[in-house]
Amino acid sequence: MSKKAKIIIIGAGFGGIKLTKSFYKKPVDVLLIDRNNYHNFQPLMYQVATGGLEPGSIAYPVRRIFRKYDNVNFRMAEVQSVDIHQNQIISSIGRIHYDYLVIASGSENKYFNFESVKDKLLTLKSLPEALKMRNTIFRNLERALANNRTEPIEEIMNIAIVGGGPAGIELAGALSEMRKHVLPKEFPELPLSKMSVNLYQSGPKLLAGMSEEASQKCLEYLQEMGVNVFLNTRVKEYDEHTITMDDGSKFTTDTVIWSAGVKGSPLKGFPDYCIDKGNRILVDEFNKVKGTDNIFAIGDVSAHESLDNPKGLPMLAPVAQQQGEHLGKNILRTIDNKPMEPFEYHNKGVMATIGRNRAVVDLPSIKFQGRFAWFVWMFVHIFSLVGFRDKFVTFIDWVESYFNYDQPLGMILKTAECEQDDEQKLNKKETVEEEK
Amino acid sequence: MSKKAKIIIIGAGFGGIKLTKSFYKKPVDVLLIDRNNYHNFQPLMYQVATGGLEPGSIAYPVRRIFRKYDNVNFRMAEVQSVDIHQNQIISSIGRIHYDYLVIASGSENKYFNFESVKDKLLTLKSLPEALKMRNTIFRNLERALANNRTEPIEEIMNIAIVGGGPAGIELAGALSEMRKHVLPKEFPELPLSKMSVNLYQSGPKLLAGMSEEASQKCLEYLQEMGVNVFLNTRVKEYDEHTITMDDGSKFTTDTVIWSAGVKGSPLKGFPDYCIDKGNRILVDEFNKVKGTDNIFAIGDVSAHESLDNPKGLPMLAPVAQQQGEHLGKNILRTIDNKPMEPFEYHNKGVMATIGRNRAVVDLPSIKFQGRFAWFVWMFVHIFSLVGFRDKFVTFIDWVESYFNYDQPLGMILKTAECEQDDEQKLNKKETVEEEK
Repeated sequence: MSKKAKIIIIGAGFGGIKLTKSFYKKPVDVLLIDRNNYHNFQPLMYQVATGGLEPGSIAYPVRRIFRKYDNVNFRMAEVQSVDIHQNQIISSIGRIHYDYLVIASGSENKYFNFESVKDKLLTLKSLPEALKMRNTIFRNLERALANNRTEPIEEIMNIAIVGGGPAGIELAGALSEMRKHVLPKEFPELPLSKMSVNLYQSGPKLLAGMSEEASQKCLEYLQEMGVNVFLNTRVKEYDEHTITMDDGSKFTTDTVIWSAGVKGSPLKGFPDYCIDKGNRILVDEFNKVKGTDNIFAIGDVSAHESLDNPKGLPMLAPVAQQQGEHLGKNILRTIDNKPMEPFEYHNKGVMATIGRNRAVVDLPSIKFQGRFAWFVWMFVHIFSLVGFRDKFVTFIDWVESYFNYDQPLGMILKTAECEQDDEQKLNKKETVEEEK
Repeated sequence: MSKKAKIIIIGAGFGGIKLTKSFYKKPVDVLLIDRNNYHNFQPLMYQVATGGLEPGSIAYPVRRIFRKYDNVNFRMAEVQSVDIHQNQIISSIGRIHYDYLVIASGSENKYFNFESVKDKLLTLKSLPEALKMRNTIFRNLERALANNRTEPIEEIMNIAIVGGGPAGIELAGALSEMRKHVLPKEFPELPLSKMSVNLYQSGPKLLAGMSEEASQKCLEYLQEMGVNVFLNTRVKEYDEHTITMDDGSKFTTDTVIWSAGVKGSPLKGFPDYCIDKGNRILVDEFNKVKGTDNIFAIGDVSAHESLDNPKGLPMLAPVAQQQGEHLGKNILRTIDNKPMEPFEYHNKGVMATIGRNRAVVDLPSIKFQGRFAWFVWMFVHIFSLVGFRDKFVTFIDWVESYFNYDQPLGMILKTAECEQDDEQKLNKKETVEEEK
């Protein structure tokens, strides 16, 4: 029995999962590592953040996905760095040897000039972040009703969204629908006309990666829905109460959602010339890391120097999936002493949803917007989710909320580990309620 | 327009919800307060803790329940105490006046001799506690596989459950089913024969509140399922690695689930003679608090001195619900200057489930156990859940897991607020994996 090649894959996102699947019943030993024990469907994260979906509807345990893969092991661990000379990764569960290493560790938030206040911002890169956003938004609405609040009610209810990419516009749309359809029923005492949802975009158009038609229609939809959109507007600073733009204008809010940028999330241990300005790992046309023989990177964490686009490929799930599938074949070819084949990205289209019956779709051949686009968006997203149960439950949630104009959820779920913190945060000052 | 009576209800559990509902369209002003913005279905909490159900399946936003109640307001707040002389409660959102006050604040864990190690125990009184239990159990299984673990694998996998009441036996059953049906598929590398589930009961029988037949059958079921049940065994101490019983026997485990007792969770501000040994508020046959005219207590937090049972009524959802419904009528009678009617508890039966096809049911007229009892249990619980969606999703989860012998969930969901803590807890020591 000859020794099988040991492949370590870091990251169970779209790229890592596809890649791992490509080794089904192949004569290799795969170790898949992620810091969480679940895969999550990032494109619907904004639904968790706004109370439309439960975390379980967009996440699925990794071990369950690979139950039938005898040659795949999974470990939940943090990987700190790679020792490229000894072919080992260094992780929270020790040093582990590899023959081939694939880094599919994705991206993380990039804060630019807001780095120093990042703890005050709400973000959307993980389920815990999405749940924190949901808790904060709903807790603020409860707080707005407290007799002893000291801030102006606008500050507590207002929401600023920084960044007009897909996440920013989807959140803006979902929040404005919530304000219109859910809050009047559940918070009838709140003066909702005083609640503003403002979206700030540094560039001249929303959805910069999409067509002109899509950007324009997206802007119209958001304005119809009552979102205040500010184009060509950079945020300058935030002091926890007021966000200031570089044109000097100000907006008073306790809630700033940051969706203005991401950067690669690589491991330590690579020479500087392997990492680009976006903190991504530079790879060649085979997704091989510059200057190495047996290390690859796919998905958001990778940047193709060789491909035409000067910024590399877009950081999208289909890119990662196509790279994962392609790399699986290439690694097997290498093991068989065959030459690798270069990766090519096939753009099957990009879409985004702004709200009920309002979506924008750019296919290579045709672009369309509106209700049909929304049905296409919904269909594609539901059927992309991992696992039958998730699809079905998601489908029920959505069918129900389509007819009810409702969000099924909205619970502020504290965690036992954090309860003390939360209690300290609660304003315990006593005041006397004024009798009406 | 005469001023309407203002009723404050503290606690949105089974009692508080029923009571609030009884004021639908009645000429009173109701303020319902809870520390959470959701009502939860406590009898199924163990399913969340063991990954069988999502939090959203057993919880429902309070505001949604009372959307159509124009005379009901809800506030999410902590109530610290009551000023019975000024008719005011003192809370995290200020002092608030009442004409009638109803305390329905439920019960909390009672730790007896384990008070000093309570932070090391897992409990089941709230959704955050249930999620912490789920995270801990699944995280331990991941940890058992780490190359650099230092504890014996038995210590990490073993589970001790202290207390043989409904929560204890339901957890023991669910965990032993997980060990048998789920873990072999998802953790094929784990030596599951080394994983013990031990249940410790201080008294001579399990399910002390139920019939002899139910207790006996429950013991048989648990033993069939591989749970080690220890009757007449008191736990003496726990040092985070080993739990010691008062007969000197020991059990090595990182995971101790505490379901050995609860106590009332009253407010501060009552004279000592109003509080019984179980920390419950003493009430008369009208659920009125001793020595007051306009303060009532219902559910787990209340103790009837006058009723026959020397310990008061059992701390069960149906008791709280019946008291809530009855008290609503009594308060309206008082407002109409009519005499109140004494409360009587109608026992409609008690049931518990040990596992798939294994439940015990004590009805007033008949007692039965086994598969039919399990279907009765399931039917009653599904249809008791609040709101259509929850019922339906729960139903799908269960139908699916019935046919698959599976748990739909099992995600270790960290919270953004806690991530730093979690990372500190991760063992970061480096060791070299041994090559096989």
